[in-house]
Amino acid sequence: MENELQERYRQVRARSERLCEPLVTDDYQLQAIPEVSPAKWHLAHVSWFFETFLLRPGLPAYRLFNERFEYLFNSYYYQVGSMHPRSQRGLISRPTVEEVYAYRAHVDEAMQRLLSGEMDTATSARVVLGLNHEEQHQELLLMDLKYNFSINPLRPAYRENDVGAAQSIAARAVRWIPGAAGEQAVGHHGDGFAFDNEGPRHVQLLQPHELADRLVTNGEYREFIDDGGYTRSGHWLADGWGTIRDQGWQAPLYWEQRDGQWWQMTLAGMQPLADSEPVCHLSYYEADAYASWRGLRLPSEAELETRLAAEPVAGNFLEQGALHPRAATDAGQWYGDLWQWSRSSYEPYPGFVPPAGAIGEYNGKFMCNQRVLRGGACVTPRGHVRASYRNFFYPRDRWAFTGLRLARDA
Amino acid sequence: MENELQERYRQVRARSERLCEPLVTDDYQLQAIPEVSPAKWHLAHVSWFFETFLLRPGLPAYRLFNERFEYLFNSYYYQVGSMHPRSQRGLISRPTVEEVYAYRAHVDEAMQRLLSGEMDTATSARVVLGLNHEEQHQELLLMDLKYNFSINPLRPAYRENDVGAAQSIAARAVRWIPGAAGEQAVGHHGDGFAFDNEGPRHVQLLQPHELADRLVTNGEYREFIDDGGYTRSGHWLADGWGTIRDQGWQAPLYWEQRDGQWWQMTLAGMQPLADSEPVCHLSYYEADAYASWRGLRLPSEAELETRLAAEPVAGNFLEQGALHPRAATDAGQWYGDLWQWSRSSYEPYPGFVPPAGAIGEYNGKFMCNQRVLRGGACVTPRGHVRASYRNFFYPRDRWAFTGLRLARDA
Amino acid sequence: MENELQERYRQVRARSERLCEPLVTDDYQLQAIPEVSPAKWHLAHVSWFFETFLLRPGLPAYRLFNERFEYLFNSYYYQVGSMHPRSQRGLISRPTVEEVYAYRAHVDEAMQRLLSGEMDTATSARVVLGLNHEEQHQELLLMDLKYNFSINPLRPAYRENDVGAAQSIAARAVRWIPGAAGEQAVGHHGDGFAFDNEGPRHVQLLQPHELADRLVTNGEYREFIDDGGYTRSGHWLADGWGTIRDQGWQAPLYWEQRDGQWWQMTLAGMQPLADSEPVCHLSYYEADAYASWRGLRLPSEAELETRLAAEPVAGNFLEQGALHPRAATDAGQWYGDLWQWSRSSYEPYPGFVPPAGAIGEYNGKFMCNQRVLRGGACVTPRGHVRASYRNFFYPRDRWAFTGLRLARDA
Amino acid sequence: MENELQERYRQVRARSERLCEPLVTDDYQLQAIPEVSPAKWHLAHVSWFFETFLLRPGLPAYRLFNERFEYLFNSYYYQVGSMHPRSQRGLISRPTVEEVYAYRAHVDEAMQRLLSGEMDTATSARVVLGLNHEEQHQELLLMDLKYNFSINPLRPAYRENDVGAAQSIAARAVRWIPGAAGEQAVGHHGDGFAFDNEGPRHVQLLQPHELADRLVTNGEYREFIDDGGYTRSGHWLADGWGTIRDQGWQAPLYWEQRDGQWWQMTLAGMQPLADSEPVCHLSYYEADAYASWRGLRLPSEAELETRLAAEPVAGNFLEQGALHPRAATDAGQWYGDLWQWSRSSYEPYPGFVPPAGAIGEYNGKFMCNQRVLRGGACVTPRGHVRASYRNFFYPRDRWAFTGLRLARDA
Repeated sequence: MENELQERYRQVRARSERLCEPLVTDDYQLQAIPEVSPAKWHLAHVSWFFETFLLRPGLPAYRLFNERFEYLFNSYYYQVGSMHPRSQRGLISRPTVEEVYAYRAHVDEAMQRLLSGEMDTATSARVVLGLNHEEQHQELLLMDLKYNFSINPLRPAYRENDVGAAQSIAARAVRWIPGAAGEQAVGHHGDGFAFDNEGPRHVQLLQPHELADRLVTNGEYREFIDDGGYTRSGHWLADGWGTIRDQGWQAPLYWEQRDGQWWQMTLAGMQPLADSEPVCHLSYYEADAYASWRGLRLPSEAELETRLAAEPVAGNFLEQGALHPRAATDAGQWYGDLWQWSRSSYEPYPGFVPPAGAIGEYNGKFMCNQRVLRGGACVTPRGHVRASYRNFFYPRDRWAFTGLRLARDA
Repeated sequence: MENELQERYRQVRARSERLCEPLVTDDYQLQAIPEVSPAKWHLAHVSWFFETFLLRPGLPAYRLFNERFEYLFNSYYYQVGSMHPRSQRGLISRPTVEEVYAYRAHVDEAMQRLLSGEMDTATSARVVLGLNHEEQHQELLLMDLKYNFSINPLRPAYRENDVGAAQSIAARAVRWIPGAAGEQAVGHHGDGFAFDNEGPRHVQLLQPHELADRLVTNGEYREFIDDGGYTRSGHWLADGWGTIRDQGWQAPLYWEQRDGQWWQMTLAGMQPLADSEPVCHLSYYEADAYASWRGLRLPSEAELETRLAAEPVAGNFLEQGALHPRAATDAGQWYGDLWQWSRSSYEPYPGFVPPAGAIGEYNGKFMCNQRVLRGGACVTPRGHVRASYRNFFYPRDRWAFTGLRLARDA
Repeated sequence: MENELQERYRQVRARSERLCEPLVTDDYQLQAIPEVSPAKWHLAHVSWFFETFLLRPGLPAYRLFNERFEYLFNSYYYQVGSMHPRSQRGLISRPTVEEVYAYRAHVDEAMQRLLSGEMDTATSARVVLGLNHEEQHQELLLMDLKYNFSINPLRPAYRENDVGAAQSIAARAVRWIPGAAGEQAVGHHGDGFAFDNEGPRHVQLLQPHELADRLVTNGEYREFIDDGGYTRSGHWLADGWGTIRDQGWQAPLYWEQRDGQWWQMTLAGMQPLADSEPVCHLSYYEADAYASWRGLRLPSEAELETRLAAEPVAGNFLEQGALHPRAATDAGQWYGDLWQWSRSSYEPYPGFVPPAGAIGEYNGKFMCNQRVLRGGACVTPRGHVRASYRNFFYPRDRWAFTGLRLARDA
Repeated sequence: MENELQERYRQVRARSERLCEPLVTDDYQLQAIPEVSPAKWHLAHVSWFFETFLLRPGLPAYRLFNERFEYLFNSYYYQVGSMHPRSQRGLISRPTVEEVYAYRAHVDEAMQRLLSGEMDTATSARVVLGLNHEEQHQELLLMDLKYNFSINPLRPAYRENDVGAAQSIAARAVRWIPGAAGEQAVGHHGDGFAFDNEGPRHVQLLQPHELADRLVTNGEYREFIDDGGYTRSGHWLADGWGTIRDQGWQAPLYWEQRDGQWWQMTLAGMQPLADSEPVCHLSYYEADAYASWRGLRLPSEAELETRLAAEPVAGNFLEQGALHPRAATDAGQWYGDLWQWSRSSYEPYPGFVPPAGAIGEYNGKFMCNQRVLRGGACVTPRGHVRASYRNFFYPRDRWAFTGLRLARDA
């Protein structure tokens, strides 16, 4: 009989494949920019993780599916060896999609053997890490696919039937919620899984402040655009202004104006922009400029975390199936829908030391030049999110499901 | 009953699809550099040509398969309208391979209707042009595929079984054949099909000269490498020397040294380099530097044409199935195996005027910065080649099946 | 009789010109990379600052020296108007050096009129800001000149006679000094001048820690190099590893190996590397990797500030005239010699709001993607430095006089 | 007493320095793009030529002025040794302008010793080559300076007083002059100096044709612009269309529209565009597109040469002092004013073999990717031009004094 970890393994792995059901073979190889990866690569890479960090060291009789996969499907674990250039992942037609599914089956079969036996704590912790890793790639798979489809002039839909499509309702007013101030403990605690970057738990001093109880909407963001937001430098960070000029940005990613009407590319293809839905696919620069233009600011990650910790992890996640952010309801909009840019640079917490070996490359080495986001999005598995969860992207990145919540000093 | 043009149409179209039989769906979309196109694009583009230049204007009841294909599968006919950026052809997963085959069937069905009816001379000439166009793309399809596969660290083979694989025989000695001198007529004449760039026929003055009766071999070219050919500037054109330094070239494209042994990527995967086979995948710069190092020169296109005109169009072509150049036999090696770089810039013949309209964009606008090649290659359909045929590439290009024949003043 | 502000104005302005005495006209225009500016531009830009923010608004009869200078010598004050592209500052031969000095004299004459009259507090505060601005550019002028000279194969010296040149003494051992822990106030306080980014003063929670009482030396850094520091990814941030691979870095900027001996470019030309001197011209990436390799870390800016606040502002500054960092003496090495990379991202302090108008662009808009440095350097005017002073550069920047101090958790 | 070669040497050298009289020290170092060189570099490089190819081998007691100049002022003679990167010539402030003049004096003094003694034919031929080389650089110096000044927003003038400034007269009508047809000898003959690329003299077959007896004017070219010449692809070579799209070209180089009026940058600063003057600073692509739009073509270099050979070498050259092209008079406009793009690729004449050694790098290695121009320009020394003279530039180049003459088949 299946134990708990076996069951969880089976469920996570099955979801990756279920997310690919709408794809045809042609779609699996798309890589429109170096930052995104092909679906085929995601499916193989997460399997490589189990093979490299669990099966090779832990299952004596394990036979590698293909020894060249080490090179092809390593992502950035320099200590594991050399790897295929990231920008060329879309140029690998062999192994085929069919072979990648065979690779997954091969790894799954071996993992079932491993999981059905006795395991020490370190090994089972590593299995859990592998599953959380695969959940991260489930979100990346959808993000990347959206970008890849958006490049096609036909703007294909990942899924024609949008669940809970936009309705033209007015967004409800924001309520300002006082945040915790003074000495506040932040960072993961308790028994559940967390990534290494969520600790050590420590105390921070928070100034009195308030947080908006919902995300900024498309309608609100359009006011910024209509007020010349992208044409005047006043509210922009210097690097932000440089970026929008170099890139020619005039609106969030995926917005298109057709005959005076705004549309946006979604996983259900092109859709009219709904004013009451949260604005998404913003860079940090745009989020910061918008807040500045409103005379407000972005919250720090500690402000967000202490507030989130007071709320149940509930909202519009991958399981809800919408795959796009929804208008805030009367209840607060705290988790889900869109990752919320914090004003905090992604840095180690006091006392943070990455684990030894290649596994230590998971998070620590990225702690430079990026900003923290919190709360999860409509493409994030719900079980994957926590109050202490630290997501991170470069300030210029826009293809993640990013949005913004406003804050102000009290 | 099928008329002659119907039969030729059917045969050419069938060969394109037969050439794709070794491919799996994953392979059809590869585009490793902007210069190469995906197999899927080639299959669609040649059909678009028939649709645009024959079916739309000539078949009243013709229904477009998909009106967006106009944009996606136009190549460079600016006068036809805007087009999808060349560098992004590999990012089109939809239409799928299956849909592209359906597009081909749709066009074929309509073309059969057109071909079975009465046709004026201009229309049938345009059908013949469309078939020659598709033959060109058959060669491009193989060239491009070779490049695309070469990028994959697994170095997949298009076809495992190489026909007439390399044998380690010594190359036979070169014989020097006197060329025609004085006033010589060059350019296409007679009734058969020719591209517009092959005329008008006109007289050129040729100096006394001699041509080698076979192509330069791998073994001979290795002597150039071993003599420091890629490390000393003396024999290189300035742009050539700049190119090999910028690109880090140290040997022809597809050559790899493994444990002191030279190998080369072929359509049958990696193969040991055979000294007696013609050296291939050379840029013009390398061909010119090699000739200079030997104290010799490349032939002009008129020298090649007058010599070729004296020979039957016979040699190692696509129909022979080898898909790699073969060692010269005792009989001269004049046609086939590899396109031969001439020293001549690709320019209009005296009196050349391109046809009016978009069809006029076929050749004339490329008459700048390129060099002429002659004779056809092992991936060229035999019926496609003539003495007057002018192929052309940029001096830096190496992914075509290019080789070199030496010449000298007499 | 000269008042205090007049005197300070005269002294600061005179020092800028004195720093240029070793230059010949040819040197004034050098701009080897977009990040550095020509000496001519620095001299003009600091004058433009006085003209724009004091003379235009505050001296009714003021006549602009040349109205096009607005465009040429604006740096990044977008709200003031458009400006000449930064990367092309080295291409402005007119105005000539002579004309720029005439521009300075013109501004000085008008400023003397302004300064000799009644001034409100806001105006005199702005004069002080202008003087601090010019002091910043004095350091930039030397930094930039060093880079510009380093590009010349002749490696010219800014000044032949090095004051206090390196002696081959062994560096003394590091002493570890306990830092302040618990709630600590940071940020500027008191009456003296400070930039807006140094406030508001606020409380931070510091963990127990210790700081090295001197900077890391060349000799110590060479051990990192000799241990393969630049060839193994283990201790590098991901962006740092990417940078050293892309740029081919194998040592700090200005280090050159000649016949097995290390030399470095200095403002006195090429000099043998002295092991006991502080290692300089490091990027943040290198500083961080070095600390990680030692099993230690960089200090936070609050850790540095609380320690610096306990020390007198004394050390090797511009006035000492060495223009290179000196070996630590037995007394602690806290200020001067080299700017010390902190681990802290350059971000607004809680409650920070930039001033309104173009002056508000001075600091706030750069608070993204940069890291804070503390303590001043051998090319910094001593009066310009304070414990609360926040300098900032991008993690990849190496041409500033940057060094590193180690820290560790207690 | 001075012999003839001494006199010629003195005159050519003096003219280089006279051309620099309007410059201030600041101007000598400008290099706005890699293709242009600073005036300082030109002055030094032509001296390096005499030092390297005459003084070192031929004057036993010759002492090098500075042995590092070998590296700094070599241009592209790979066989002479390594050299300073071309793109960084503008970053050399030392040697100073003053030192470069001292270098010239040093070389001149030694050359006078060499020239006053006995010389073999090879040596005196090399002196003549050196003088022709310096004459080429006199033209380059003016071309480059014009470009460098054009980058400055102040648009400085090399010389305020324009000699023979534009008058708003109507251009006279073109007369079509029949060209020589049939077998025609081309290439240099006779005793005078010629570059190696002008021979060997040989026979070409020319088709019946006619040449316009003057250059195309600004007014005529404006008709092309006004007809949408830069917005429709029809008349452009493919590489030309790509270039104007990438570069955003909408008019010839140096044209600027201000308040609906066309101006152009000249060596006398910004001047209103005179319709009757020849259009200048055109790329080959623009020249070719214009000719195609008129239903005409560019002449071949043989057509131009045979026509020029029938005319005296007279026209608007450097000696006339205008430094801009003048409107055609009633007499034909054959030489001077502007270099005329031919349709001919720059290639070796039959039998051409470059001289051995580094001197052989003068011309031959550039015979790829460039087009020939004929006739000389208003910045060319008159004595430097001949009917057989072959100038050459890349099709994209626009900063040379280039214009166009139309041709048509008869």
